[in-house]
Amino acid sequence: MDARSITDFELYDIVAGGDKEEIESLKEVVLEGWVKTNRDNGSIGFIEFNDGTYFKNVQLVYHKECKDYELLSGLKTGAAIKVVGDVVLTPENKQPFDFFIKEFELEGDVEEDYPLQKKRHSFEFLRDIAHIRPRANTFQAVFRVRSVLSMAIHQFFQERGFIYVHTPLITTNDGEGAGNVFDVITHDTKDPHSFYSQKVNLTVTGQLHVEPFALSFRDVYTFGPAFRAEHSNTTRHASEFWMIEPEIAFADLRDDMNLIEDCVKYCINYILTACPAEMEFFNTMIDKTLFERLNHVVSSEFKVLTYTEGIELLQKAVKEGQKFENSKIEWGMDLQSEHERYLTEQVFKGPLFLINYPKEIKAFYMRQNDDGKTVAACDLLVPAVGELVGGSQREERYDLLKARMDELGLTKGLEWYLDTRRYGGCRHAGFGLGFDRLLMYVTGMSNIRDVQPYPRTSGSIKY
Amino acid sequence: MDARSITDFELYDIVAGGDKEEIESLKEVVLEGWVKTNRDNGSIGFIEFNDGTYFKNVQLVYHKECKDYELLSGLKTGAAIKVVGDVVLTPENKQPFDFFIKEFELEGDVEEDYPLQKKRHSFEFLRDIAHIRPRANTFQAVFRVRSVLSMAIHQFFQERGFIYVHTPLITTNDGEGAGNVFDVITHDTKDPHSFYSQKVNLTVTGQLHVEPFALSFRDVYTFGPAFRAEHSNTTRHASEFWMIEPEIAFADLRDDMNLIEDCVKYCINYILTACPAEMEFFNTMIDKTLFERLNHVVSSEFKVLTYTEGIELLQKAVKEGQKFENSKIEWGMDLQSEHERYLTEQVFKGPLFLINYPKEIKAFYMRQNDDGKTVAACDLLVPAVGELVGGSQREERYDLLKARMDELGLTKGLEWYLDTRRYGGCRHAGFGLGFDRLLMYVTGMSNIRDVQPYPRTSGSIKY
Repeated sequence: MDARSITDFELYDIVAGGDKEEIESLKEVVLEGWVKTNRDNGSIGFIEFNDGTYFKNVQLVYHKECKDYELLSGLKTGAAIKVVGDVVLTPENKQPFDFFIKEFELEGDVEEDYPLQKKRHSFEFLRDIAHIRPRANTFQAVFRVRSVLSMAIHQFFQERGFIYVHTPLITTNDGEGAGNVFDVITHDTKDPHSFYSQKVNLTVTGQLHVEPFALSFRDVYTFGPAFRAEHSNTTRHASEFWMIEPEIAFADLRDDMNLIEDCVKYCINYILTACPAEMEFFNTMIDKTLFERLNHVVSSEFKVLTYTEGIELLQKAVKEGQKFENSKIEWGMDLQSEHERYLTEQVFKGPLFLINYPKEIKAFYMRQNDDGKTVAACDLLVPAVGELVGGSQREERYDLLKARMDELGLTKGLEWYLDTRRYGGCRHAGFGLGFDRLLMYVTGMSNIRDVQPYPRTSGSIKY
Repeated sequence: MDARSITDFELYDIVAGGDKEEIESLKEVVLEGWVKTNRDNGSIGFIEFNDGTYFKNVQLVYHKECKDYELLSGLKTGAAIKVVGDVVLTPENKQPFDFFIKEFELEGDVEEDYPLQKKRHSFEFLRDIAHIRPRANTFQAVFRVRSVLSMAIHQFFQERGFIYVHTPLITTNDGEGAGNVFDVITHDTKDPHSFYSQKVNLTVTGQLHVEPFALSFRDVYTFGPAFRAEHSNTTRHASEFWMIEPEIAFADLRDDMNLIEDCVKYCINYILTACPAEMEFFNTMIDKTLFERLNHVVSSEFKVLTYTEGIELLQKAVKEGQKFENSKIEWGMDLQSEHERYLTEQVFKGPLFLINYPKEIKAFYMRQNDDGKTVAACDLLVPAVGELVGGSQREERYDLLKARMDELGLTKGLEWYLDTRRYGGCRHAGFGLGFDRLLMYVTGMSNIRDVQPYPRTSGSIKY
């Protein structure tokens, strides 16, 4: 078999291109991939075939005349095969072409207990076979979009001249001081902390480490893993996840919101363009409102509302009969998802920045507003989800930042962070965007365990 | 100050573009950034200014007539400033233009103990101020190239249709079974392993997790952090580093080597094109052989030599008087850097794949050759460094793989990995490329601590 090798993707691309000569050349070409389904009637057989390079299957056809007919008709779902054959256009059929098999080789057989048989499987079942589920339709779509969305993030920032910074994962600080960290130790039985001569943990945020880079390169971003040892057994929490954390110097909260809006719109447009087959699948099979929702976001101008105004609107709503699980709305409270969704879905019917939160419920590094009560934070709320992005202008004034850190007992070990305010500090801002949640949002997948290759949530770990 | 904001990069870009109208428009524009140096003679002053968006500084000029002359002349190295002014071309000078200051604002002052004063600092000293060193010339160059090289990696693989996979960092296996892992625990004093109900550690490789994705998507890659709790206090070892691990299905060792060669050449060409100023700096200030070395690699056809032939060449060399620290060359030994460098520098004078290593010195998952002694591994050796990439064809035959894993006691917990060989497995291959080492190689920087934003090596951790 010395024929020319080709992929699913290339086949579809050439056929869609419509160049007659190129299509004519698709004779005696080699395909290698996996059997999705196989059926035959004794004289003709059909294999739904996929090599993972494109979302759509190729229909392989084999005839009784083919010397390997018996072997072909015995092929099971999941088998890896290599075939040589010819492409024939089928404008009258649903699929644009068939592939007629001339030669065949079994590359890897599949045993009887193969768990991904041709039938509908629940996501719960598939989670338990994380090493096999990437072959299932839904996960072919999820993980391709995950890859493309990652690239969208990088392109968005790199096109704008941002510097990508690999902030460290092992660190001595716990970011916002929330305490739910994983510690990192070695097998030194005398002193498990001897490796670094001190206690270390996995990072919860790259922000503190990336700020000094913004104060050197102006516009920077991180895109890497972060960890939280939280026992939240919800559909939106994982103990390991990927975060995007841009940081921009000589910028304030308004600049930050502009960047968030541009970034979210860019990502949505990017995947709609780059993954049409997969997005169509999500819109049809996973969430029938997906396209409507995404198109609405892309064409909306994001609104801005202060936290204080938000509280007033919620209090008014409760008075007028709106029911919440928590209907005790008062200034200073941390809004729940139900409140956020009410504001973005019912009141504004579109993406909404909520800004200027009470300082007590936000992180120490956020810039204090002149009212003495609030900080220059912004959360982006979107319909169907609630909070998607959290950002803020950072406190660049040394005295105010130090006072706040002292008050919260966070100064020790972060002197270097404070120093950046004494050495040519400047106004700056940034945000954090959970990559896995963004992926859920743009695909309609409702459980974080179904958008991560090998999800890490509390209670169990496999693989 | 409502004038138009602009960056160093945009200024240089417009001036280099040569469009007269655009250059004329550079009046009353705003620059924001940091003072590198400042000198004046009482009637005219010059500030070397940089905002981090471009490697080259802008010369700001201020005259006695400027109302802020006194303030400007008092500006210290490191101060953050905002200036409004006009660009004037200076074709007779070294720098292509000056920027004449009309208005000025101090954005953030700098205190007397600012450690990055205008003088030459040792890399050792700068390592101790990791939060400040990104402003130093060398590190402006290093971290910009780091960012661009990251993008080069993503573009290389995405252009070829590879799927980017985020393999997990917290895992139950230790990859190749070398044992030098960091364990991950929580603050649960009764059972520090309760969070996942079992012992977990930080990953040493994403390969085992990414193979199932290659067996679903055909061509995939990881690009993420990996960890080794090794006490190697060398210039090439860090306990936390970023790795690139592609995996290709329906591919053998030759396909793997082709991919490695393409990838390395692509990356070098990419940064030479995208970072000319930084690369010029490295070639002038860090390693005067850099361009020669990189151009040589790009224009070379990578050679292939078996391990056995390599041993014979080394034995012959020793006989003829070649001195090594370890001159006892025998089949089965693990080659040292001095041996690898001898082969690539003295014998082949260019990039060289060494293939088919003894199975005892290579990982369990490498495909056994028919000789029963060697495995289908390939290490890419390059002049000045030695090993840059390690790859192999993977053992796809269940029985052989299981026997080898049983022999080494690695089967328990990796049943899922073995399963991929029973469920439509196929020949496949991949490689591992240490991103930080690649960055060292293409910049000429000789210590891994000087190419990582916040290096993590044994003995100490700051930041």
